[in-house]
Amino acid sequence: MASPGLLTAQSVRIKQARRLATRAFRRKAGRFLVEGPQAVREALEHRELVIEVYAEPAVATRHRDLYDLAATAGVQWLEVDRAAIEALSETVTSQGVVAVCNLVTVQFRPTGKLVAAGVQVRDPGNVGTLIRTADAAGADAVVLSPESVDPHNPKAVRASVGSIFHVPISTDVDIHEAGPIWREQGLQLLAADGYGDTDLDACIDDGTLAKPTVWLFGNEAHGLPDDINALVDYSVRVPVYGRAESLNLATAAAICLYASARAQRQ
Amino acid sequence: MASPGLLTAQSVRIKQARRLATRAFRRKAGRFLVEGPQAVREALEHRELVIEVYAEPAVATRHRDLYDLAATAGVQWLEVDRAAIEALSETVTSQGVVAVCNLVTVQFRPTGKLVAAGVQVRDPGNVGTLIRTADAAGADAVVLSPESVDPHNPKAVRASVGSIFHVPISTDVDIHEAGPIWREQGLQLLAADGYGDTDLDACIDDGTLAKPTVWLFGNEAHGLPDDINALVDYSVRVPVYGRAESLNLATAAAICLYASARAQRQ
Repeated sequence: MASPGLLTAQSVRIKQARRLATRAFRRKAGRFLVEGPQAVREALEHRELVIEVYAEPAVATRHRDLYDLAATAGVQWLEVDRAAIEALSETVTSQGVVAVCNLVTVQFRPTGKLVAAGVQVRDPGNVGTLIRTADAAGADAVVLSPESVDPHNPKAVRASVGSIFHVPISTDVDIHEAGPIWREQGLQLLAADGYGDTDLDACIDDGTLAKPTVWLFGNEAHGLPDDINALVDYSVRVPVYGRAESLNLATAAAICLYASARAQRQ
Repeated sequence: MASPGLLTAQSVRIKQARRLATRAFRRKAGRFLVEGPQAVREALEHRELVIEVYAEPAVATRHRDLYDLAATAGVQWLEVDRAAIEALSETVTSQGVVAVCNLVTVQFRPTGKLVAAGVQVRDPGNVGTLIRTADAAGADAVVLSPESVDPHNPKAVRASVGSIFHVPISTDVDIHEAGPIWREQGLQLLAADGYGDTDLDACIDDGTLAKPTVWLFGNEAHGLPDDINALVDYSVRVPVYGRAESLNLATAAAICLYASARAQRQ
């Protein structure tokens, strides 16, 4: 039984919010869903982002700091029943709190010393992990090509573990147009490619990685398209010392971005 | 309609094979399932591993090399209908071929220069990715604590992308017992810990990483237990240059194992 005053899964507000699980509706509304106490806390620390919070009644006591943050920020805190929170949640076991936020993506600007670019990255978990890893490596920006998954996808948001709020992310960036603009700003373009002709260790040893760099990471199954590979300064292979055929996207990105971060700081 | 001669999902063989999706039955039978043409090919290249192959009729023509490998190895090739292959498959869209194999795990031996140890790693995807990354980094062995996920779990097998057949894997290894044995063999123990008191870059700079090393990676949510952290030579933190709170397990493992691989080769 729903308590009086709790929004239910049948309420118009919940039905509207729930549609933010799809990309087309997110674009139209300019909003997305952020789930779980940790991510909602990060969102509330950027107070201009959060429109409203939906939470089960227990959350206001269990996570008092969240409730207080929302109150201080003047963000509406709406109590909902279990079915409503489940309707808004991506996870199997919802932690009882979901925020509706303004989209975080920003206009592309070719700045910084270290940029991670995802080209046709299709798996939301990989996009989220790429953002998290780029943030950890101190990257100045994440850029995604038009065919990549939306970073506001609920699975991508979850995999980013809050990093979606830390690092500037630009979507729908045409890499052919961006390439020359990055170069004008003094950034080199490096492709991470399992079949690349330059070894990552060689790029560390000869000082290449110390330079301002845009790393391009391709699709999980097909890698980078030939026309993108043709744009870059070097096509760089993470060395495989054992018998694995390749590394997965997130793993290769972590090794490349951290190699650049270390080289740029030395 | 099933063609005559095709095994169906109701056949006793398929029902038996299907039970290998659970750990208890894998242990009892000493067998596990390997799915998809690429993984089945890797398995067949170690011919003593494969007991039998279940495949839709089209697979013998679409992947003729697999059929020939099985024939050469004297492995039984059993044709099945769509429902039967789906019953044996973990993936949503089965690629039509599943092999029943002997378990690949081996007795623990404290050998080598680079070892990846998973302690209470609970996510099958993470265990598989850890094995794949260890293989790529040229690790000599992967060791898993008793509370870790079985590497023969179908999701772990898939995430390993064949590496389960490349690198020796030992399960149910008591890290408290293994610690002193590794030390006797001249291997140092390093914990990967987000709150570690030693910086990874410092370990690279001072030559620590050039030594034979066992890297210990902990649980996704809780990290390494205190009693394991007390065993190690150093508790090592991958530096976070940006605002991410932490790295995910597979990402941190990739950075640590590749840092060791590079240091040991220089």
